[in-house]
Amino acid sequence: MTEPFAPLLLALAVILAAATLGGWLAERIGQPSVLGELVAGIVLGNLSLFGFEGLERFKESTSLIALAELGVIVLLFDVGLESTMGDMLKVGRSALLVAVLGIVTPFFLGWATGAWLLPERPVYVHVFLGAVLTATSVGITARVLRDLHQTKSQEAKIILGAAVIDDVLGLVILAVVTGIITAAATGAGSISVPHIVWIAVKALLFLALAILLGSLLARHALRFFARSRLPGTLLTGGLVVCFVLSYLASVVGLAPIVGAFAAGLILEPAFFAAFEETRRGLTLRSMIHPISTILVPVFFVRTGMLVDLGSFANPSVLGIAAALTVAAWIGKQACMLGVPQGGINRLAVGIGMVPRGEVGLIFANIGTGLVLAGERIVTPPLYAAVVLMVIITTLVTPPALQWSFRRQKAAPAH
Amino acid sequence: MTEPFAPLLLALAVILAAATLGGWLAERIGQPSVLGELVAGIVLGNLSLFGFEGLERFKESTSLIALAELGVIVLLFDVGLESTMGDMLKVGRSALLVAVLGIVTPFFLGWATGAWLLPERPVYVHVFLGAVLTATSVGITARVLRDLHQTKSQEAKIILGAAVIDDVLGLVILAVVTGIITAAATGAGSISVPHIVWIAVKALLFLALAILLGSLLARHALRFFARSRLPGTLLTGGLVVCFVLSYLASVVGLAPIVGAFAAGLILEPAFFAAFEETRRGLTLRSMIHPISTILVPVFFVRTGMLVDLGSFANPSVLGIAAALTVAAWIGKQACMLGVPQGGINRLAVGIGMVPRGEVGLIFANIGTGLVLAGERIVTPPLYAAVVLMVIITTLVTPPALQWSFRRQKAAPAH
Repeated sequence: MTEPFAPLLLALAVILAAATLGGWLAERIGQPSVLGELVAGIVLGNLSLFGFEGLERFKESTSLIALAELGVIVLLFDVGLESTMGDMLKVGRSALLVAVLGIVTPFFLGWATGAWLLPERPVYVHVFLGAVLTATSVGITARVLRDLHQTKSQEAKIILGAAVIDDVLGLVILAVVTGIITAAATGAGSISVPHIVWIAVKALLFLALAILLGSLLARHALRFFARSRLPGTLLTGGLVVCFVLSYLASVVGLAPIVGAFAAGLILEPAFFAAFEETRRGLTLRSMIHPISTILVPVFFVRTGMLVDLGSFANPSVLGIAAALTVAAWIGKQACMLGVPQGGINRLAVGIGMVPRGEVGLIFANIGTGLVLAGERIVTPPLYAAVVLMVIITTLVTPPALQWSFRRQKAAPAH
Repeated sequence: MTEPFAPLLLALAVILAAATLGGWLAERIGQPSVLGELVAGIVLGNLSLFGFEGLERFKESTSLIALAELGVIVLLFDVGLESTMGDMLKVGRSALLVAVLGIVTPFFLGWATGAWLLPERPVYVHVFLGAVLTATSVGITARVLRDLHQTKSQEAKIILGAAVIDDVLGLVILAVVTGIITAAATGAGSISVPHIVWIAVKALLFLALAILLGSLLARHALRFFARSRLPGTLLTGGLVVCFVLSYLASVVGLAPIVGAFAAGLILEPAFFAAFEETRRGLTLRSMIHPISTILVPVFFVRTGMLVDLGSFANPSVLGIAAALTVAAWIGKQACMLGVPQGGINRLAVGIGMVPRGEVGLIFANIGTGLVLAGERIVTPPLYAAVVLMVIITTLVTPPALQWSFRRQKAAPAH
């Protein structure tokens, strides 16, 4: 029993110490601490370049992945707790516009980039690249917003609302593109329209049910937890609601963090009134903070560890990666047009939508499994380029987002 | 990525909800909530008897094991934080006596039980059973002591101190017995005395270094964490010290929880003075509580889940298990004789040393790997009997320990 578990303790100690060192250095040069955690992870993950292999086996450690994923779930739950459904509905129109613009523009830009740089490959590859660029992953944005104390801002609500909608639209696009390619590969003719509609309906149904029924069920579930009067049940009850919705999100094909965010949205302070902790002045969020303090850095350091600096050595990969990154960046800047004039930092919204994160990687992974005329849709060098694009969009976001908020503060208009 | 992770979220939600329900029912009938968690785990783990297989795959989930193990580490760290080295040294003499009595008596009782019930098997099997009974696992005792608000009592200090010493002595006994059997099996003659001495020296060196050097290093490490001024570094720094010592304990062959307890002992409030959190009135323990609220029940529910009610169906297994359990119980009651007269609840000390937990299972597992004259030292039915003994000693401890403390309170002498 101790054999496989003990090394995890060492890995956690190293990751947490490196995260603290990285975060401290980042803040000293005026950057959000998450950037320091990412860079600390890149250093830890590439020590093998200097002949140190001790950390290699942790990159794929199931337990470490689970702790990292729990970290990003707790982060989105915490961010969700700061908003209510009412807050989100107020920005609903803007969020929808931002989401649609942030899907359509990168899709066509990605398609064009593919057609331009890889003219010898079939059109399906170009379309698939477009689909990959539509992904949005707001884990990093949520974290930077928290580092900058901006989670309650209008910008944060628009970004997070749009990200949820994007996840649904992204699912549909991925299903359509995959369906088209599979149909072309097998010669089965047209793709199944009902199948695609069903994917979209499932995802939308989940969100509607999570919000309507979930709120009702969560209220009852929490009443049970409150009645037990055991110490800490406010925290346990809240996290059970969060874990259940995260799980259900993944069942319908959405990212688990969408469920975690929805759980945070539907839990209202009124649900907690019956808990003994509430009477003692403790809040759910104050109890979640120690948990996120430990787990959230594990997610970001591990994200950094997965960056393989060796892939920077291939010039053709670098070229495609650079073009994809530019397309990814410009594509999401179109989101600005969805934000109404006045008072809202449109630049921050555009930048906040940029990171592709693990959602982009999941899309690319699916592409490596699609084969057309004996060739993979996403070849290994193309995959390396997508990974690089994901890394760069992730690394660029923290400083860019901070800059956009500082710039706004300095501007006399606000 | 989401595929293997999402089911863990569901498992966690089910485990936490079941733990709350079990804890609530246990407290309603006047029992410590940990008993309810264990029983909730037994129910969850044996749903397959009713045809429900949904939870079977979680019994061996690496991520769930890691979360459970982190839970018991955080628990022992927290208990260690409540005491100082000075407190422990005050009970040092008693703890040493208790530990030695709690090793010697069960060893000979286990040997005798083996010789009585399994006369046809070689003497090595009897000796090995004796070694298995010497194990002590204080996870459950630490938890019950916390449920009863007794972690700062003299009894708690004697039990925990004796458990640490037991872990070292147990290592030596296991090494000697395994060495004797291996020597008999290979006909290699005598066992290597220097090897056994080295095992003991390593373990003792670790404890001495952890306490002397560890205290010095932890102070410096925490100074670094305090300097970073990032939010939550008091918690991060404390847990890094805990994880490093837990890991080092496992490297020298001790249980990781011994390292976690030692880490708690050496961290003194003075080390935390420089942290911003300390100035805001937050303590390391107040930040650890939300983490232990979530992780500790995972450990105890999972412990319950591993109980296979099916093994109760074999009468010969039941007979040996009953005899071993009685030997295990009486053997540790001898610990009472090591406690000085007056003021201290000797019965509680004896009962607190009873649970064999995972340490007993590790010993038994090693026995299944030892082969003598073509037959395993620990055969499958014997292993099932040992598992049952471990279960019963674990389940009996919470109510018995609570009873012993209530009895003391009711007695007019104190």
